[in-house]
Amino acid sequence: MKLALIQQTFFKEKEKNIDKLTKNIRDCAKAGAELVILSELHNSLYFCQTEEVKNFDLAEEIPGNSTQIFGDLAKELGIVLVISLFEKRAKGLYHNTAVVLEKDGSIAGIYRKMHIPDDPAFYEKFYFTQGDLGFQTIKTSVGNLGILICWDQWFPEAARLMAMNGADILIYPTAIGWDINDDFEEKQRQLDAWIAVQRGHAVANNLPVAACNRTGWESLDQSHNGIDFWGNSFVFGAQGEILAQANETEQNIFAEIDLKRTEEVRKIWPFFRDRRIDAFEDLTKRWTN
Amino acid sequence: MKLALIQQTFFKEKEKNIDKLTKNIRDCAKAGAELVILSELHNSLYFCQTEEVKNFDLAEEIPGNSTQIFGDLAKELGIVLVISLFEKRAKGLYHNTAVVLEKDGSIAGIYRKMHIPDDPAFYEKFYFTQGDLGFQTIKTSVGNLGILICWDQWFPEAARLMAMNGADILIYPTAIGWDINDDFEEKQRQLDAWIAVQRGHAVANNLPVAACNRTGWESLDQSHNGIDFWGNSFVFGAQGEILAQANETEQNIFAEIDLKRTEEVRKIWPFFRDRRIDAFEDLTKRWTN
Repeated sequence: MKLALIQQTFFKEKEKNIDKLTKNIRDCAKAGAELVILSELHNSLYFCQTEEVKNFDLAEEIPGNSTQIFGDLAKELGIVLVISLFEKRAKGLYHNTAVVLEKDGSIAGIYRKMHIPDDPAFYEKFYFTQGDLGFQTIKTSVGNLGILICWDQWFPEAARLMAMNGADILIYPTAIGWDINDDFEEKQRQLDAWIAVQRGHAVANNLPVAACNRTGWESLDQSHNGIDFWGNSFVFGAQGEILAQANETEQNIFAEIDLKRTEEVRKIWPFFRDRRIDAFEDLTKRWTN
Repeated sequence: MKLALIQQTFFKEKEKNIDKLTKNIRDCAKAGAELVILSELHNSLYFCQTEEVKNFDLAEEIPGNSTQIFGDLAKELGIVLVISLFEKRAKGLYHNTAVVLEKDGSIAGIYRKMHIPDDPAFYEKFYFTQGDLGFQTIKTSVGNLGILICWDQWFPEAARLMAMNGADILIYPTAIGWDINDDFEEKQRQLDAWIAVQRGHAVANNLPVAACNRTGWESLDQSHNGIDFWGNSFVFGAQGEILAQANETEQNIFAEIDLKRTEEVRKIWPFFRDRRIDAFEDLTKRWTN
């Protein structure tokens, strides 16, 4: 199974983003990708840089205009497509939601971001209610997809629960970048840590892991530094081996995934045989001492 | 706080191992280490390569001869020392147990390996009953130590529970190596995966992580290939940055650990603020679908 990640920069205007994404998705399908993954909140700039009430107008219903447009494209190209939307669920209730579109254009399932960050220039708790669908895989014609979103990637529990729910692959639409005031060493540590923790999920769960990040500098407010989205989208295999890795430039990256490999790796490293579930109760606590 | 890991080869004879370890421990203390960590089951060859009833005679009581010898050494040198023993708890009841010795020579605490492996040449389930003390940190004069052992290192749950129990550092005495029949690429993937998953624990928990492995080829049975212990002991910092990394040769490696760094990293990456403990109940299950 060949998958593609689209790592690109974005515009303020939704239509221009959809046009650019459409061109890239067509290119990926033409190159043979059966599964195409977009980065987080790709229909706009990363509006969570500021807390602005008017930004709620960017939210969309699911199903709605975007699932129709991208669903039609998935059907036309015969691909499974993972999109990422600012979901308007009800008046005053919003989520950060990924939608998986099947090859027939239908919605295979949605995942609502469970872990919502909030730190300077990433004010997501202002916009999004945390997901209430749990860590459920989404069944598709290319496998059981364990979709998680950005901040989720720092939590081994999320990866584990998706694995235990039968995920064939973990997929992270992402929007992460640097504060331009940080020095080179700090930036490098942050990027390395982001890669390392997800590579750890691949190893611990014997699953391929794909993360699709934005790239490019975006600033929504002259009083802020903006965010320099660091790209570096990647795909790791079921043993944590690197299958594909982007740098910071715009690009579509591809990887061949052998979904039978997970079972082979689990035969030599049978972690799921040995988990001490009798001693894991405290994982549902905040802190234990 | 300066710590040292002693990565060495071992003899069949306990006395020769203790002599060699003693020399290395003295060297580490002389170099300024306050915390010295030995690799797994350092008093013998890695006897779990075979299932032999006579090997139970290698087991020792705790407290006992080894805790006395190494306790005296810890006191003489004024260091905290992490040793790893084949524990005889009762007739017919054995554990794979780490003991932490304080600067005054007393036993600060013990940790009984919770996850016991069993695969060709690592027949640990034959020898060791899984630990029943849970994931409790051990309080010492150099910090709260989260001691885990070898196979535990593949389980993010173990690292997380030690972190939530207040660990200042995660420490893994280890005995891991290659089957000499595996090809170079497979060996490299295994080594990289072993490093990656523990680097992931450092990042996910904002904690330094130290793993002290055996090195050298050991064979206990002419009908087997033996194990080529791969060394590569390492120390990662609280952001997953590499502080020290050995190659495959015998060596003592050192790292300066800034225990205040964890709190600083947790201020910029507040994972413990956001864990979705309301959705983690299934972590105590074997599988969820």
